[in-house]
Amino acid sequence: MQICRSTGEIRDLSREWRRAGQAVALVPTMGALHAGHMSLVARAREWVDAQGGGRVVTSIFVNPTQFGPNEDLDRYPRDEEGDRRKLAQAGCDAVFLPRVEDIYRPGAQTHVEVEGLGRMLMGRLRPGHFRGVATVVTKLFNIVQPDAAAFGEKDYQQLTLIRRMVADLDIPVQILPVPTMREDDGLAMSSRNQRLTEADRAAAPVLPRALAAAQEMAATGVTTAAMRARIRGIIASEPRATIRSIDIRDADDLTRVTKLARPAVILLAVAFGDVLLIDQRVVRP
Amino acid sequence: MQICRSTGEIRDLSREWRRAGQAVALVPTMGALHAGHMSLVARAREWVDAQGGGRVVTSIFVNPTQFGPNEDLDRYPRDEEGDRRKLAQAGCDAVFLPRVEDIYRPGAQTHVEVEGLGRMLMGRLRPGHFRGVATVVTKLFNIVQPDAAAFGEKDYQQLTLIRRMVADLDIPVQILPVPTMREDDGLAMSSRNQRLTEADRAAAPVLPRALAAAQEMAATGVTTAAMRARIRGIIASEPRATIRSIDIRDADDLTRVTKLARPAVILLAVAFGDVLLIDQRVVRP
Repeated sequence: MQICRSTGEIRDLSREWRRAGQAVALVPTMGALHAGHMSLVARAREWVDAQGGGRVVTSIFVNPTQFGPNEDLDRYPRDEEGDRRKLAQAGCDAVFLPRVEDIYRPGAQTHVEVEGLGRMLMGRLRPGHFRGVATVVTKLFNIVQPDAAAFGEKDYQQLTLIRRMVADLDIPVQILPVPTMREDDGLAMSSRNQRLTEADRAAAPVLPRALAAAQEMAATGVTTAAMRARIRGIIASEPRATIRSIDIRDADDLTRVTKLARPAVILLAVAFGDVLLIDQRVVRP
Repeated sequence: MQICRSTGEIRDLSREWRRAGQAVALVPTMGALHAGHMSLVARAREWVDAQGGGRVVTSIFVNPTQFGPNEDLDRYPRDEEGDRRKLAQAGCDAVFLPRVEDIYRPGAQTHVEVEGLGRMLMGRLRPGHFRGVATVVTKLFNIVQPDAAAFGEKDYQQLTLIRRMVADLDIPVQILPVPTMREDDGLAMSSRNQRLTEADRAAAPVLPRALAAAQEMAATGVTTAAMRARIRGIIASEPRATIRSIDIRDADDLTRVTKLARPAVILLAVAFGDVLLIDQRVVRP
């Protein structure tokens, strides 16, 4: 596995591969890799193989511009050695590890903004977050010039926003959505799970249980209000859980829906102690 | 010369050329082509030839998002037949003529914004103009995927902004700046010159004369205030001219300068009747 620290190195490597007729797929991450990330690498590998062979690049970059002033960028977990070992084992061909000063140079003043999708839901709680995401993903695409890039459904709003951005700006990259990886009891994998107390960890699978109940209701032609009430009831029955938000939105553009005429996505944010967990599920009428 | 009306056609054509090892250079225009545009095509041709051979693509698209609500988009001159004839004669290989609805699709909500450069000078007078320019140029780059693109120095702020955007977003396109084409009497070529009365046309070369006088002063270590006074005096001596603005800025980032320690650009906007002419010149201390 090749280690590239400069933008020039990874750009040249990717160009060389593409000139040799190999497809290139990118997996953008912020490091602290777990099995969820490895499923993105596996999807990228599967995709390039289906193109007749190719290469998988993973980027590891804790992007400062997507953290707010009160969000602790410095405390974000970092484990470069562990990440590199896991990526090499997963058959990743190259890892791109840029320094902050190589990505954001003095005088930089250009931003990519997805107006609607970037300002709703999580974007309202974290102003500027999705502008930071859209801008750094655009830059990573321009540096690596991949044919495809894998994003997890776990960050559903981010995935939706990236798809919109790629369509709106005619970016020549195919987006590969990857289903959320789950523990045996259904809990969505996340680096945050390690911060849960034992009791909270045991309680947390109430989230996927509530989502599964919602899917069962969806087939009955229910209103979203009734579905939200059912989800709220299931999660509230778990005293360790504090509901932050339950949103039911159109699965394609995240606009509000009242009746389930098309696929919808349920977005949950639920706190256990000081750990905020998110989960999501697309439900079909 | 190939005529491409869909984004898929020009993208496939460009990809085919690049796969065959040919360099591709793009000349983005809004049509109504004159000799100034042809100098952009010639520069693009010269550049691809220097790469060992390649192809020149000209896009013609009157971009609605860079016009303000009070600016008359519908009155912008259009001459597709004349443009195609001129481009074919100039040895352009392909012309990309998209429809508005192929460039801006329903639900599009992504913008590229160059914060500082897009909001000063012309950007203050025309809010949203440079956001429209940055977004459409990003899209054209992503559709055509050129190795290089030619922009005129005549629209100096636009050229500066595109260079900044390309650096900030790591866009893999080399920007080719092209000096302003001038009539025999020094007047910068522009489709607006045709709208001048005979008397105004005879008076308009006061602009390049004032710029030439400024260059002579620049070598003497003058302040920008003294230089501005001299330019103002020369233009004011022409009674048909109405000065709208005289700006002297850093040639690289368009920040204000008071002393000529580095190259500066003089930006003029002067009205003759109801026709606003612009001109510019980089002066070196």
